[in-house]
Amino acid sequence: MAAHSDDTRSNSARASAGNRLDPWYSSYADRSLGMRASEVRSLFAVANRPEVVSLAGGMPNIAGLPLDFLAEMSAKLIRDRGAKFLQYGGGQGEEEIRTQIVEVMRYDGIHAHPDDVIVTTGSQQALDLMTQIFINPGDAIIAEAPSYVGALGVFRAYQAEVIHSPMDDKGLIPEALEETLKRAEALGKNVKFLYTVPNFHNPAGVTMSLERRPQIVEICKRHNVIILEDNPYGLLGFDSEPLPALQSFDPDAVVYLGSFSKIFAPGYRVGWALAPHAVTQRLILAAESAILSPNMVGQLSIAEYLKTYDWFQQVKEYRGMYRERRDAMLESLTEYLPSSTWTVPDGGFYTWVTLPEGLDAHAMLPRAVTHRVAYVSGTAFYADGQGRDHMRLSFCYPTPENIREGVRRLGTVIEAEKELVTMFGAQERHEHGPVIENPSTETH
Amino acid sequence: MAAHSDDTRSNSARASAGNRLDPWYSSYADRSLGMRASEVRSLFAVANRPEVVSLAGGMPNIAGLPLDFLAEMSAKLIRDRGAKFLQYGGGQGEEEIRTQIVEVMRYDGIHAHPDDVIVTTGSQQALDLMTQIFINPGDAIIAEAPSYVGALGVFRAYQAEVIHSPMDDKGLIPEALEETLKRAEALGKNVKFLYTVPNFHNPAGVTMSLERRPQIVEICKRHNVIILEDNPYGLLGFDSEPLPALQSFDPDAVVYLGSFSKIFAPGYRVGWALAPHAVTQRLILAAESAILSPNMVGQLSIAEYLKTYDWFQQVKEYRGMYRERRDAMLESLTEYLPSSTWTVPDGGFYTWVTLPEGLDAHAMLPRAVTHRVAYVSGTAFYADGQGRDHMRLSFCYPTPENIREGVRRLGTVIEAEKELVTMFGAQERHEHGPVIENPSTETH
Repeated sequence: MAAHSDDTRSNSARASAGNRLDPWYSSYADRSLGMRASEVRSLFAVANRPEVVSLAGGMPNIAGLPLDFLAEMSAKLIRDRGAKFLQYGGGQGEEEIRTQIVEVMRYDGIHAHPDDVIVTTGSQQALDLMTQIFINPGDAIIAEAPSYVGALGVFRAYQAEVIHSPMDDKGLIPEALEETLKRAEALGKNVKFLYTVPNFHNPAGVTMSLERRPQIVEICKRHNVIILEDNPYGLLGFDSEPLPALQSFDPDAVVYLGSFSKIFAPGYRVGWALAPHAVTQRLILAAESAILSPNMVGQLSIAEYLKTYDWFQQVKEYRGMYRERRDAMLESLTEYLPSSTWTVPDGGFYTWVTLPEGLDAHAMLPRAVTHRVAYVSGTAFYADGQGRDHMRLSFCYPTPENIREGVRRLGTVIEAEKELVTMFGAQERHEHGPVIENPSTETH
Repeated sequence: MAAHSDDTRSNSARASAGNRLDPWYSSYADRSLGMRASEVRSLFAVANRPEVVSLAGGMPNIAGLPLDFLAEMSAKLIRDRGAKFLQYGGGQGEEEIRTQIVEVMRYDGIHAHPDDVIVTTGSQQALDLMTQIFINPGDAIIAEAPSYVGALGVFRAYQAEVIHSPMDDKGLIPEALEETLKRAEALGKNVKFLYTVPNFHNPAGVTMSLERRPQIVEICKRHNVIILEDNPYGLLGFDSEPLPALQSFDPDAVVYLGSFSKIFAPGYRVGWALAPHAVTQRLILAAESAILSPNMVGQLSIAEYLKTYDWFQQVKEYRGMYRERRDAMLESLTEYLPSSTWTVPDGGFYTWVTLPEGLDAHAMLPRAVTHRVAYVSGTAFYADGQGRDHMRLSFCYPTPENIREGVRRLGTVIEAEKELVTMFGAQERHEHGPVIENPSTETH
């Protein structure tokens, strides 16, 4: 699989294989060699310049938070409970916040016990821990096509094989999933879990229909494949309350991930996993090994915020703000990208654009940045080099005015590209191999 | 190596191998099977009862922190800089705190650049990331005998082989380290790094002498083994300023880990690694995959505290408090444990006790807890089942009065055990195999 998995060279032989820039190059683990810096990272530094409209990042807009309330609340927590607030906690996280998390999950139709919840350093860490406890190198994971770039990065770090299964505008397609699983089994793959973002998908912007949810659960259960349900945006629906989580159809078959980063604020880095009891116990052991315990400051602050503030009203304000931005995005797409198509998200942060035939989102990105607009190429969201005909546009962070201006610039770039393709053909632009982009500004 | 590393069973075959308590039992990765709940965890629940004096935990005593100052400071940060304070940051951590960390490390004789520092979720995460990027299953790590239980847990989670190298009261013995490395190489081991806690060792309580430091660096460099220098207690010396870090003798040969948990407060979970530039870059990639970014609230809070408070005066107050507790510990050991020996720490949290011949710290622990005193058995600090003749006593958290009472109780238990051993012999008490204890209250 990797270059020196059976390496029995002596340490001094290893030394001579180092290079001038990194004397430790030949000492790294196989898994580390799979972790690559993003090709577009330098581009993202440019994309963050003020004159560039970034439709690339996934940063929530937290300008509406009640800062005075939070300032008072934090000061009071330190004064009244400083000895606990500033101390270590247990590896599972505080019961105080786990109890609140159980309440938050009721909106998704979940009836859980705080004992089955583990608090993590954002839901990203829960993704990492799940992969750590389930995946041997070479094991397979089913993921939507496309899938969240940050999850693909974790799966790659643990040397998993990612098998994509197709979606349509109602999310993951049950019949296709069944086929994907059967094909994988026939090839002798050891499929460990299905990773899915059922609500307001990142990057596809679609939501799994109610009808399909129990079907997906049933299929996975029959194939003995646990479901990893990642739901950071679930409460951010623009037009309706959340559909019931996959977890609610069969709690033994699903590990559910949640996060406060989008419904409150990312600065505390607090997310969670809800898992079948025995799986939770293993997640706790892995978490204690990785970080000892999640940060107490974030846990107590968020628990207090949930208890003493009308947090759901804040969620509704977020919904209104993001809805306005989604509308600005869709309207300007209609105006400026007449030859492309896109998904229509009912919530969340993203729309998924299909470019006119022959255009290559990956190759086009430097030119877009030159025209002061940035996006993420569709290639970032596949493990296998697909996605050049797609781009993800995010409407979470820029103002509606900036979104319109950004899409206008993008329209100009796309029209110019179309002319080039018409004149010279698309062939030579596809010369680069598959690449996983992992932009540093990417969040979820 | 592990049960099903070459497992090609189908998913449904796996299903039938599940058990009633955990339907996913047969799906876990090999590394997960090595993570075990502590045998003494239930004991620790008892140990945390108020009537028990715990000389077991590693929790710092943070009662002396300036809560009013911190309350004001936090409120002001939220009011003035809320949009940054509550937002995501970069994977490496904020330059603001990395610059301060460089200043803190000057006390250890380190001259570093903020670019080479990565902020982590406590130094525990830095330990985890280092192991992740360097260790393939089966690779070897040299660690002191004994070594920090939390590090041994990480090494085990990555399926490393730990080879212990002996210490004396001046720390790791250079000649013995040379021997250990030669023997490992002769056996074809792929030794990736040396893990060492040079100052106020956990659990041994000793400090590596100045003379030995460049020798240890030279030996490791010659054998192409990178040094992982873990220094959470370095500033907590009772009688003198810190010795220069191993890092200061050769920055290319050492990854240095630091933490704010002991010199300020653990509640923010902020630690760091300083590494050679190329290693830092890999640590950042691994950290982004694991958690996206460290929590902003902790980073900005600690940076502000370091900038605006006389933090080194707070360190001096900690030193005074822990010195008084160390003194109480040593005096009562002399009084109540006449037939044991122990190390004399010049700083930090721990002393390492050698029991009278024939006594077994592991077997004795339940009886000690019955007598309302708790400690950690020496077996927790070895990867290979050694350490039954040792116990770690911590003097960081209980008051001097409680320390004296705890040691008095321990003396009673030890005297009673000695009588039992005299009457019945020690043989049958050693029947259990090697065990790594990983008490949930353990910190570092």
